[in-house]
Parts: sequence; C-alpha cells; structure tokens
Amino acid sequence: MNSFGKKLILTTFGESHGKALGAILDGVPAGLKIDEEFIQSELDRRKPGKSPLETGRREDDKVEILSGVFEGLTTGTPIMMIIFNGNQKSRDYDSIKDLFRPSHADFTYFNKYGVRDYRGGGRSSARETASRVAGGAIAKLILKEMGIEIEAGVSEIDGISSANIDFDYAKTSKMYALDRDIEPLQEEAILKAKSNHDSVGGVVLTVAKGVPVGLGQPLYYKLDALLADAMMSINASKAVEIGDGVLSTKLKGSENNDEIKRDGFSSNHSGGILGGISNGDTIIVKTHFKPTPSIFKPQDTITTNGDEVICELKGRHDPCVAIRGTIVCEAMMALVLADMALLNMGSRIEHLQSIYGDKL
Amino acid sequence: MNSFGKKLILTTFGESHGKALGAILDGVPAGLKIDEEFIQSELDRRKPGKSPLETGRREDDKVEILSGVFEGLTTGTPIMMIIFNGNQKSRDYDSIKDLFRPSHADFTYFNKYGVRDYRGGGRSSARETASRVAGGAIAKLILKEMGIEIEAGVSEIDGISSANIDFDYAKTSKMYALDRDIEPLQEEAILKAKSNHDSVGGVVLTVAKGVPVGLGQPLYYKLDALLADAMMSINASKAVEIGDGVLSTKLKGSENNDEIKRDGFSSNHSGGILGGISNGDTIIVKTHFKPTPSIFKPQDTITTNGDEVICELKGRHDPCVAIRGTIVCEAMMALVLADMALLNMGSRIEHLQSIYGDKL
Amino acid sequence: MNSFGKKLILTTFGESHGKALGAILDGVPAGLKIDEEFIQSELDRRKPGKSPLETGRREDDKVEILSGVFEGLTTGTPIMMIIFNGNQKSRDYDSIKDLFRPSHADFTYFNKYGVRDYRGGGRSSARETASRVAGGAIAKLILKEMGIEIEAGVSEIDGISSANIDFDYAKTSKMYALDRDIEPLQEEAILKAKSNHDSVGGVVLTVAKGVPVGLGQPLYYKLDALLADAMMSINASKAVEIGDGVLSTKLKGSENNDEIKRDGFSSNHSGGILGGISNGDTIIVKTHFKPTPSIFKPQDTITTNGDEVICELKGRHDPCVAIRGTIVCEAMMALVLADMALLNMGSRIEHLQSIYGDKL
Amino acid sequence: MNSFGKKLILTTFGESHGKALGAILDGVPAGLKIDEEFIQSELDRRKPGKSPLETGRREDDKVEILSGVFEGLTTGTPIMMIIFNGNQKSRDYDSIKDLFRPSHADFTYFNKYGVRDYRGGGRSSARETASRVAGGAIAKLILKEMGIEIEAGVSEIDGISSANIDFDYAKTSKMYALDRDIEPLQEEAILKAKSNHDSVGGVVLTVAKGVPVGLGQPLYYKLDALLADAMMSINASKAVEIGDGVLSTKLKGSENNDEIKRDGFSSNHSGGILGGISNGDTIIVKTHFKPTPSIFKPQDTITTNGDEVICELKGRHDPCVAIRGTIVCEAMMALVLADMALLNMGSRIEHLQSIYGDKL
Repeated sequence: MNSFGKKLILTTFGESHGKALGAILDGVPAGLKIDEEFIQSELDRRKPGKSPLETGRREDDKVEILSGVFEGLTTGTPIMMIIFNGNQKSRDYDSIKDLFRPSHADFTYFNKYGVRDYRGGGRSSARETASRVAGGAIAKLILKEMGIEIEAGVSEIDGISSANIDFDYAKTSKMYALDRDIEPLQEEAILKAKSNHDSVGGVVLTVAKGVPVGLGQPLYYKLDALLADAMMSINASKAVEIGDGVLSTKLKGSENNDEIKRDGFSSNHSGGILGGISNGDTIIVKTHFKPTPSIFKPQDTITTNGDEVICELKGRHDPCVAIRGTIVCEAMMALVLADMALLNMGSRIEHLQSIYGDKL
Repeated sequence: MNSFGKKLILTTFGESHGKALGAILDGVPAGLKIDEEFIQSELDRRKPGKSPLETGRREDDKVEILSGVFEGLTTGTPIMMIIFNGNQKSRDYDSIKDLFRPSHADFTYFNKYGVRDYRGGGRSSARETASRVAGGAIAKLILKEMGIEIEAGVSEIDGISSANIDFDYAKTSKMYALDRDIEPLQEEAILKAKSNHDSVGGVVLTVAKGVPVGLGQPLYYKLDALLADAMMSINASKAVEIGDGVLSTKLKGSENNDEIKRDGFSSNHSGGILGGISNGDTIIVKTHFKPTPSIFKPQDTITTNGDEVICELKGRHDPCVAIRGTIVCEAMMALVLADMALLNMGSRIEHLQSIYGDKL
Repeated sequence: MNSFGKKLILTTFGESHGKALGAILDGVPAGLKIDEEFIQSELDRRKPGKSPLETGRREDDKVEILSGVFEGLTTGTPIMMIIFNGNQKSRDYDSIKDLFRPSHADFTYFNKYGVRDYRGGGRSSARETASRVAGGAIAKLILKEMGIEIEAGVSEIDGISSANIDFDYAKTSKMYALDRDIEPLQEEAILKAKSNHDSVGGVVLTVAKGVPVGLGQPLYYKLDALLADAMMSINASKAVEIGDGVLSTKLKGSENNDEIKRDGFSSNHSGGILGGISNGDTIIVKTHFKPTPSIFKPQDTITTNGDEVICELKGRHDPCVAIRGTIVCEAMMALVLADMALLNMGSRIEHLQSIYGDKL
Repeated sequence: MNSFGKKLILTTFGESHGKALGAILDGVPAGLKIDEEFIQSELDRRKPGKSPLETGRREDDKVEILSGVFEGLTTGTPIMMIIFNGNQKSRDYDSIKDLFRPSHADFTYFNKYGVRDYRGGGRSSARETASRVAGGAIAKLILKEMGIEIEAGVSEIDGISSANIDFDYAKTSKMYALDRDIEPLQEEAILKAKSNHDSVGGVVLTVAKGVPVGLGQPLYYKLDALLADAMMSINASKAVEIGDGVLSTKLKGSENNDEIKRDGFSSNHSGGILGGISNGDTIIVKTHFKPTPSIFKPQDTITTNGDEVICELKGRHDPCVAIRGTIVCEAMMALVLADMALLNMGSRIEHLQSIYGDKL
C-alpha cells in the first residue's frame, strides 16, 4: 500500500524525523542514461527554505542512488534512492505528542494503528513527497526519450487566479507562479496569512505535452482516473480536475465537445483524454490544495486520552503547501505517464511482432 | 485493467451491443446473505427509460447470478453476475462506423487498438456501469453488516445548484434531485437542452454515514485517492472533490480546519478523511459530469481515414448523464469502502489475535 | 485471488454443479484473429468420457465467447468465455453433504469459509480447469504469433516411466502417453487400479519450443517460479520440476552445468531457464499428480459435526487425473509464457523507441 | 517484479557488489514488538564463512532498520532494512566481465537487458537472499503471535539422504543437517567435491507447525502454489515438493489418502494442505537445489561477442548452496504464511463483525 504504479512501481519508505527516507523505483527499462544532477535538481526545486513563502526548516534532501544503476546506465533492476535525514528538531514536537492537531492525520493514524510516530507528522508528513520527486525525476528521463515534457505552475492562491498561463515564467518564479502580473497579489496573500498566524490554499496546473495517442488502460486504470488518484494522494489535496473539469458541468454539450479537423482537435475542453485514453492533445490537470492545517492560532482539540485541550503549534510550516506541491504534481504526472507508456506496450498484436520479430 | 479493488475485486466484461455484459466480484466474505431482489432493484434504479430526462432506449438489465452463492449465502468463491443484452438496435450505429463522434472515446479506442466495436460505443459505453451497480449492490450488503449506509443525489444541473440537501427526497425524485424546490428549474434546463438537440452537465453528491475510523491505506491506497480514482473512472466524469474540495482552496487554515471536541469534530470541511484515512465523520464526495457528448447538432469530425466530415448523430441518448450517474457513484463508493474495510483487517497485531485466537 | 497473471490475466468463476463456469481473459492484444474452433478443440481434448481411462461423466464443455471479439478479431477488451453446465447429477453428492472426503478440499473449504457447495466439489472441483484450458487456448494463439509452440504428454503412470519422449505420438494417444511402447503397461496399471476401486498417480512433461531469450521477470516473477506456481495450482499436483529438477541435486556441478558454444548450449539440464529468465532453449517442466483422492474403497472420515463415519463414495471419477491434467499443464504453460512475453516489453529503453518512434 | 506477497509485501533492492542491499517490508501490523537482535541473528545464520563448507567470502551482513519502527513497536508503515556492502573484491570479477559463466544468469540478464552489472553476479547473486532473511525474520515475529513455528534442515546432499529428521539437531549443525549420523557422509561429499574444484546439490526440508486451518486463497493464490513459487524463486532451486510430493505419484489413492479421525488426520501425505488451503497439520515442503554452477574446472563458454573461450573461475564460492539456502527456505515459508494469515482475514462475514463490532 506504499507502492504506486503497475509496471513502473514506486515504493516509498521513511518518516519525517526517522533516520532516512527514500524510494525503490522498479520497472525502469534497462539502458537509460541516469543524470544524477538532474535528479538532485528536482529535489532542490521541492526542498523548503528557498523563500519566506515556504517553511524555514532546512532540509538538504541530498539523494543517493544505492542500486540499479551501473556505469551510468540503468540495468533493469530496482533503483534505490535514499535521503538521510539531517538534524531534525524532534523536540519541537514533544508538545503535540499526546494531542491531535486539527485537520492533520494525527487523529486517524493513531486510531487506525494504535501507535504513531508523532515526530514531525511521521509517515503522514509531506516530507515523504521528496521520495516522489526522486522517482518522478527518473520517470521524466524515460518520458524524455518519448518526447514528452511535463510542466506545472501555481494558477491560484487564496482565490486569486492567474489570468495568463506562462510555464516558462513559472520555472523562474520563486513561487512557481504562472502569471507574472498576478504573482505579487498572490504573494501578498500568503505573507498576510503568515503574519496572521494563518495559512492559505492554492491550485496547481500541470500539463504534459507530446503525449502520444493511446496511453491509458480502460476501464479501471484509465489515464484520467489514475491522474486523479495520483494527485489526490498528495498531502492536502482536496480536488482534482481534468481539462475543463468543474467548468465543463456548466457548459452545453455543443460548447464542451472538441470537434475534430484533419490536423487535430479544434479545442481541448477534454484535457487531452477521451474514454480514459490520451488523444494526443495536451494533458491538463488541476490539483486543489487546502490551506496548510498547521497554523499558529489556538484551536480546540483533544488529547489521545480524549481530554479537551487547546492546541498551540510551534515550529515552522509552509503557509501555502500548493507552492512546493507544484513539483510533486509534476512528479506524479511523470510517474503516471511513464507507467502508462510501459503498460500500453502489447495493446496491439503488432507490438509483439515489433519487439520479438528478431526473437529479442 | 478491467478490475477494480485489491481485496474486494470487481472485474467487468462486455460491450454495449455484445451478447452480454457483467462482472465477477471476487473476495466477498463467505456467509453473507444475498438478497437478489435488492441487487435487481439497484439495477432498476440505473436502467434507462424511466422518464423523459433519460434516454428512451429500453434495457431490461435483468441480472442473473451464475456462481458464488449457494442456498442464499455467499461461499467465498467468485460471484459471477451476468446481464444478457436484449434486442440492441446496432443498425443505428452504421452511420458512425467509419467516423469519430466528437468527445467520445471512438478516436482513442480506434487509435490505441487499431480495431473497435463501434456498435453503441462498444466497451466505452456507459452501459458498462450496469456491471458496477451489480457489484456495488453486493458491496452495500457487506457494508450494511458494518452499519455503513451510502446515499447520493444530484446537487447541480447546468450550473443550477441545490440549496438544500435532502437525500430522502432524492430517493423518490425521478432525477435523484437533492432539493425539491430547485428540481423544477433543473428539470427545465435538461428538457430545454434536449429540445435544442443539446445536452447539459451535472454534479452528484455522494456520502457515506457510519464509517468507522481507520479505513484507507496510506500512502498509495488512500481512501480519498481511491475515491477520486473510482469516481473519475465513471464515464463523462471530469472532476472529483472531497469534502469542501475546490472551496477549501479559497479558505484560510483557520476557517478550513475541523476542530475537535470530546464528542467529535466541530465541522466536516475535510469530508470525513484525514491523511487518506476515514475519521469517523460522514464521507463526502462530489463528482462532476460533463454534458453528454452525444448531441444531435451537426459537428465537425473526421473519418477513420482522416477525411473531414459532418457528424450527425441519430439514436437515443441521455441529455444529462449525471442523473443515472448518481446510482453509479453510490456503487463505486460502496466498492471502495468495502474494499477498504477488508484491507484494514490486519492493520493492528490485535486483529490477528482476535481472528486466530481460537485458530480460526 | 481467482485471477492468474499480471498483464495477461485470467479470472475464472464457477462451481462444478452451478449454472455455469468460465473465465474472463484480460490483456489480450487487439487485432488477434480468434479461431473459435481451435478453442473448442482444446476443451474437447480435456473433456472427460473419451475412454475408459477417464471418468464416465459426460460434460459437453461447449464454450461461448460473450465479449472482447468483434468480427473475428480481438478488440483489446476483456474476453469472456462461458460454459453452461448441463444436467449435473447433484443428487450423487447428497451422501457426502455432511462428511469430508479424505484428501479432498472438503475439510479445508468448510473450515475456512464456514459454508460450502458440496455438489461435485463445488469450486474445488477439477472441473474449473475447463476455464483454464479456454484461456490457455487464446494464450496459444498469442504465442503462435511469436513462433512458440507448447507440447505435453504423460511421462509416468503409477511409477512406470516412459523411456522415449515422443510428443507427436502423445497427440494421438488416448492417454497422451509419450512412449508408445510403455503405454500398454501404463494403461494396464490404470485399469487394474480402477477395477480395484483405487486410483493411481502420474507425471506430465510439458515443454515450450521457440521461446526467445529474455522472458521472466526477476526476482519475484521469475519464469521458473511462476511455472511452479502455475503447475502447483492445478488440482492434485504435488511437485514441480524445472529441467533436470530432482535429478540435478544428485549431480556434480561439472555434470549439471550447460556449457555454451557459438551455436548454443551443449546441454539443457537447466530446462531453458537461467536466473529465472528463458535462455532460448526448450523450456522443460514436470508436474507430478497424486492419485485421485476419490476412490471407492471405504475410508475413515468425520462428519461436519465431528462424528467418525465411513466414507463410501459413489459416482464416477477419473482413476488417474494426470491424463486430463496434461491439457491443463499445456494451458498453464501457455498463460505463463504469454504473460511473460507481454511483461518483457519495456525491459529495454529501445523497446519504447520501437513502439513510440512514430507516436504509437 | 521485485516484490513478493499481496498483503505482507517484501520489496528487495541491491546488487552483490553495489553500495547496499536491503528490503522494504510493507503491511506489517502495527503494535508488533521488534526484536532487532533476533533479526540480526537470522542474518548471521545465513551469512557465509562460518565453516569450510561455505564460501570463504566475508560478509558482515549488519542490518539496520531505517523506518517503520518507533520506540520498539511497528507503526504500520513500511519497514526499511538496509545492509551496506563492505569491501567487495570486485576486481575478482574482471576476468568474467566479457563472458558468460555456464549455468549462471549472466547469459540471460545480458540478453534480456542489454547491460549487466557483472560484479559478483550483480542482482542475480544469491547475496540478495540476505534481504529475504531480514524480511522473513519479521514475518516469523508475526507468526509467533499466532503460535506458528518454522523449522528447516538439510535432508540430502549429493544424493545422500537423511534417515532421521531431527530439527533440533539441525539448529546446532554447522551444515543444518537433519540427521546427525548421516551428516559426516554428507560433509565428506561436499569437501570431496570442493577439493575436486567441483560442487554438489542438496535438498532442504522446511516445515511449519501450529498453522491454523484455513490459510491459502484459492484458486490462484493457493498455499501450495505460493510455496512452490517462493521456493522456486530462490537461487539454484530446481524442484519443489509438497508433502509426499514426487513419491505420492507412485502410490495408490488408498495409500496416499489421509483418513480423518475425530482427533485429526491419520497421516500427512498431503503435507498439511488440501485444495490449496492449510488443514491444520504440519506444512511440509522440500526444495531441491542444483549444484553450485560456480566451479573451478575449465568450461566451454562464449564471450558477449559470441566468441568461444574457456571459462576459468576464480574467487570463492559455496560448494553446496543448499546449506545456506536452508535459512532462506525458512524465510520464504515465513513470508508466505504471514501473508496468508493476513489475507485470510475477511474470508468470513463474522470476521468483519469481530473487528468492526466496536467500530474499530
């Protein structure tokens, strides 16, 4: 239950304040050149502390590959990537050891398992997404061989929407904002909430370009369903839209349908997916993140014994998880598409002939 | 790829105009009393032709159990349920044999597989959801043993939202409307679109009450992620929200957090799920359906040879798929929760003692 | 748990005396020509009553395809195959309703599930293997496209071994015997046991020729491990050997190693598998079947209430299950190899380029 | 494909001469007391160099738990166990870099993947079994809670069989021999082969006592089939027998059937499994290991370019892999039984009531 994917399988381990965290990525085709600097650069994009918009915690997130790569190439065996935890301030969490932080997983983990590692949220901490980003980086290298590119950016903060969508700008923005003009308003909203000991939500737009027709396995491993699964599995995510998503429910069929011309679709309301299968157009997914539940206002809660107390959090937390969530959305999209590309092989009998024509 | 679930596994088969369709439900605990009338009644709720708001096609959807039940009780072996197709009017589809209906799966199936059964949409037809409803009915019987109840209703049509949420009313409404006062407006919108040869979208609200704390397997089989997967796998679904969903991204943390009192949560913005695990509160999911792509206005499209043509559909189609989708949402929620209830067994070492204390 | 395979997935259903049994085969590549006569002919090879060496029960085993095939070609959707049960003599089983037949699954099914369908062994009956043979027949059609051929025959009965291995003869033999000269002795052993109200065991040799190098997914989906799983899952199977198997434990390394020359291996002690991966040589598997537990001598047993009684079976049973098991061994080998061929696609990065070079 | 199990899932990583190897064990119930010394002691039983009967290589096999355990108890999250590789003599393998050792996986890995890590056999090395033993140790802790005990020993070496079966003696024997009197002959056979630069095969007997009735999931996750899979997945294994195995094919039904008395079975030819489900009697499995392919006699082989050469191995290798294989057989049996115990929960509707009666 800690594994994602069917043919390209990411299995993650590790708690926020444990000795280490990381992932085994299984199913990577042999012969892929591994660019370790690229993998590290992806982790650097996710790591906290790069601006006042993020938690002030320092996590180096140095990733090391322990298996599956030989002389720079993948060997077809499982790729183990590990990130050792540095000096975590576990003592910060002593005060919450016996109580449940509102809208955190504390309550459910404790009641499901009967025990919990309360330090830094343990396994339920968003720190686990570092492992996803490491796995997603390798998935991106696979997709690159197919000419597929993934981009993401923040399209909304605290209800303030981007008017323009500029993925190139997002790459340079410290908050991965898609709209240079709206960004100052969005930034202001974050900082204001932060100074109020509060937090805000946000929306991440993720797209994939160059996806061939045919990815997605109906009926219960559809591309859109798996993307929804992938995005909803990210901490603090509460809604996922494909293509026009919620908006499409307010349109007429004649407005929402994508007509077809010889050179392609006339529009892309569908977000590049029809019947759970990619149609060759850009894949479009929106992921909605709730405001960080870790706020510094006093809140009602109970202890593990059921006594009512006031929860007063200390420590450092992102005032808006959507920002760093952007990198995680990219990683999850990459994992989904690479898995689908591998699974699709064999969907036609000609594929067998193409691979085995010369008996491998 | 035609199976859903990990411990309670639904595998469906069948095409819209093939000889039969149905499902194998594997993993049902032995000793469950099977109420065949209830299963049929669930299929009857989904079947078309009950009102002018639905397609005029007649499908009897008589389900027959062929295995796995003996003297009224489940035996722990796979339960096969079959629905034979009646007199399908496959000739209606001759005109679309060689072209792609806009925003249908025609284009993607053909390009993925190289062949397609064009009659009635083949495997991509929403007719497959009859199999889901049959499986969901048995899942409901399992959940009933645990005191879990699932309800659903239409909360929005063509942008017209329900003000009140009344699941009891929805049970009696011919369009499963949640709000008796808004229903006439919603109905009018559907009929108007229909008379314009067009279609409308809608939103379905699905809830589960009586769910124990602890269902959901982190990190990659989270309850919310699997619900998103389940709902997004339904035909025409384009967005899924958990709890406050999209709205929560516009709230501050202090507004969105669910504080905790001795006797429970003070609010339920989270929709009953924290960290991917049920928290004992009502599970709340919204599923957004796009307008039916089958409209009767002329549209641009291409043939399988790539030639541009005008698509002019014939036949009978639901002007709003959200209505009958309501029953499918219930079924998918039931399948997810029953699977999660089974999977959760063994999450604590005490469970082993409880089951094996007397060596079975 | 009623599904076999990872990419080519056979899910079976049905009890011996239920309404029907059959299988859904999922993952068959689209565009494969389906030869229904061939599938039926495979079932005919397995069906009982063809000689006095088999049970006298009549089962027609007429298979019907209900989905997944359109105009003679597979469409990439699940293939449902059904066999309706004819007039089963369930009354024959009334006498065993409340007792456990020694060395049958009666005892374990009843104690695991608390209920059982006692008629004809219910789900535990070898009748289920008809579904495997149907699935295996389609797997053979896939393998044929790759030039892979599977053959099997009886190599030993009641301890009497074949000296020669002649698969062509086995095809014509009523007991699938591999050695024409030894066959009369083997036949005599069966008939003698039968007249003594007893039964005998036997061994089936199954081989696959033309298998490319590279099939098998290390480390926990190895080709040899999956073949062992597949063969051991057949009713009454108690041992599986790969290549020289048991004999190889009595050889020195220098005797057992297969040296390599430019044009191939000098010997095939390994049975065509090294490190869990096919090496291009003939795959060799031996499956050992215990004597049929259904004998007509009185035996001690207990009732479902725990009372001691004498079990005196009636009805008709195969005196040697290895004979008809031969066809099941072929089917399981075919399912394993076709699954492995599909899974192996994507083991090298070049495969992606070969399939997606032209974007599908 | 590097994962084993369905509910208790072992995923291993690492190559023989890589930086580290290890495993993630997922699905361990929360609240289990982890005895780290016991886990290490299991690895110590498997590690080489304890006697002249084993390879002289020194591998410390110090295992470290990096996640999933908090204050001595499991938390229900994945347990990561790592073994860092010490100073491996990779240079020993330079001579085989470009050739295929006969009856090793060199040929198949190279041809499947196009690249291979030749150092020490890379991923195909039996060194990987250290990870299995680590996982198996935790599985044993789970089984201990259920009163299940697993034992194993060497029953045959080079064709020399044990006459007595004494698991207590095996625990103290340096070669895990089951028969104190036969052991000297078996030891002599190993040492003689070793001095001849050759190797011998052997057979391991593994049993489980105290197993409740009901473990095993028919029809495609049967207990015997999964044990066959598990044992056949161990390096150098070529045959697996359940209960009387091969011998049972030479018996009459009346000799092989296990009759039933009020207080249990009169015999245990079946090896504790009927219809793929445990019957409460001792589980009995025999695993047959071929002689180590690494011998020091010159052998014909080819290079990766296809040129014929003589293979002359250097380095240190076990003259008989069955000895250390004994510990691996125990580990695999433990993993299978613990997985089955977890999977069986939910096989009856009463189980749900037993776990959820109080809503968890």
